[in-house]
Amino acid sequence: MILTVTLNAAIDQTWIVPDFRVHAIHRSRRVIRQPGGKGVNVARVLHALGTNVCATGFVGGQNGRWMMKALESDGIPSDFVWIGKETRTCLTFLDPDHGTQTEVLEPGPTVSEVEWHQLTAKVATWAERSSMVACCGSLPPGVPEDAYGELIRIARSRGATVWLDTSGKALQNGWAVRPDGIKVNQDEAGHLLGKVVSSRAETIAAARQLVRDAGQTVIVTAGVQGLAAVVGGETYWVTPPTVQAVNPVGSGDAFLAGWLSATHQRKSREEALALATACAAANALRETAGIEKQQVSVLLKEVRVEKVVD
Amino acid sequence: MILTVTLNAAIDQTWIVPDFRVHAIHRSRRVIRQPGGKGVNVARVLHALGTNVCATGFVGGQNGRWMMKALESDGIPSDFVWIGKETRTCLTFLDPDHGTQTEVLEPGPTVSEVEWHQLTAKVATWAERSSMVACCGSLPPGVPEDAYGELIRIARSRGATVWLDTSGKALQNGWAVRPDGIKVNQDEAGHLLGKVVSSRAETIAAARQLVRDAGQTVIVTAGVQGLAAVVGGETYWVTPPTVQAVNPVGSGDAFLAGWLSATHQRKSREEALALATACAAANALRETAGIEKQQVSVLLKEVRVEKVVD
Repeated sequence: MILTVTLNAAIDQTWIVPDFRVHAIHRSRRVIRQPGGKGVNVARVLHALGTNVCATGFVGGQNGRWMMKALESDGIPSDFVWIGKETRTCLTFLDPDHGTQTEVLEPGPTVSEVEWHQLTAKVATWAERSSMVACCGSLPPGVPEDAYGELIRIARSRGATVWLDTSGKALQNGWAVRPDGIKVNQDEAGHLLGKVVSSRAETIAAARQLVRDAGQTVIVTAGVQGLAAVVGGETYWVTPPTVQAVNPVGSGDAFLAGWLSATHQRKSREEALALATACAAANALRETAGIEKQQVSVLLKEVRVEKVVD
Repeated sequence: MILTVTLNAAIDQTWIVPDFRVHAIHRSRRVIRQPGGKGVNVARVLHALGTNVCATGFVGGQNGRWMMKALESDGIPSDFVWIGKETRTCLTFLDPDHGTQTEVLEPGPTVSEVEWHQLTAKVATWAERSSMVACCGSLPPGVPEDAYGELIRIARSRGATVWLDTSGKALQNGWAVRPDGIKVNQDEAGHLLGKVVSSRAETIAAARQLVRDAGQTVIVTAGVQGLAAVVGGETYWVTPPTVQAVNPVGSGDAFLAGWLSATHQRKSREEALALATACAAANALRETAGIEKQQVSVLLKEVRVEKVVD
């Protein structure tokens, strides 16, 4: 069982808007709504891969009710804490004419202290039955600055391995507690290390440095370039398949889901990195976050995983 | 009593997004949601002006339920037809840094034939007790092309005066049935007449031509320039106050509400045009559609109404 934690869940809306421009009036062709937030996206892909998962976090209001219904009808198991405020909405505008993708994120609802304690209790309970816990995304107002640190300590004390996928201050605070693994992009790695991370060599060096500093497993993604992974002392570089991305939103979450699923099934590191990368590529082919399992199988053959030995 | 009809109602969301750009990720500062659609906006301003009003139209789904609750808590009387599909959402992004305003409208839900007949019956019932009916906005999929023509005939046969405020094909079809009044902008007037309407002289000429062709009262708005009105054979030009617009969405609806309210109270044409124009200006000063009555009183003194006698 894998538990995903989404403290700042959202309804993700993807609006298809031809010729999207600032200071103009547009008629959208179509709007697709689905439950979102990074941990929810991870749970969706884990479920699609056939891995036992439960999604938790905070939901509230009318949007929260809609979200619970939608997760249920998608068959994704969940156990969220109900809060007094309304779950937020995040918007993505896809312009099929120019290939642009514009995102607007609503600020999250404020979580009360009581609600936060309900969440930590829930994570404690679920961590008992989970081999892995994935802590994903930004922090809503109201939770402690060190929210992820606290969750990592709780989950680990119940015997679960904890992965952290977040950014900014939440990442820094969580990182200080040494989660079992982190997935960061080049900017976030650079932020943690206080330097620019851009080339392949810098990406590999950053992953190694982060492992030396505190971590066990570190993955630093470099967009379409690929990614560096340091796992059990070994360093890998992964080159993804070339795809015509429709919407890359959620590809990082699909990556993490693929990685967790494969690790959960005790696949080799190379297999796990390849599956994760294929999931990320498959996610980018869709208008909304998620994967088609069949596309993952096809893309898997085009992923190149190499051990870095210098 | 004035009845407003909104066939394509929406939840209007105003997102405050600094430095709004295409192909970027933004964190919105704030999101304001309120019931919308042109007729709903007209009803809100009529209510704020203290005029007896009822709003009708189609609503459905979770958004419809939210809308009914919000109208009720704002004290705006309504009697909508419930439909099987979900009420749409319309988005406006206000960028306080650059003063841009970007709108994205969702396509409306499809209305069934039975639902359309329920609406015509409701309009017939309410028109009996209303002196005026305002038919506002676009047509959702599923209603007849000549929806406004049918509503105009129904309302008129019950003794009500009918105003039409729409665009494109819906306007052309409604116009053919000769509503008692129309409010169009320069583009729409140009579309009806098959010519360009841009200058003050062209705007006045267009209003007069439309009255000669079919109408009783015609108002052609020209944005910040002002507007031309032909009422009871007399032509007027109205110059609005200069305001620093925050969000002009809904100003046309506020104008119509001011006009209907004043006409309902049998004020003079000049007074009605001035009140309508002050309402439009007051609406533009807010982030969302609606007026502060006190601001209307202040702005009223700055409106200039002149009779055109050439």
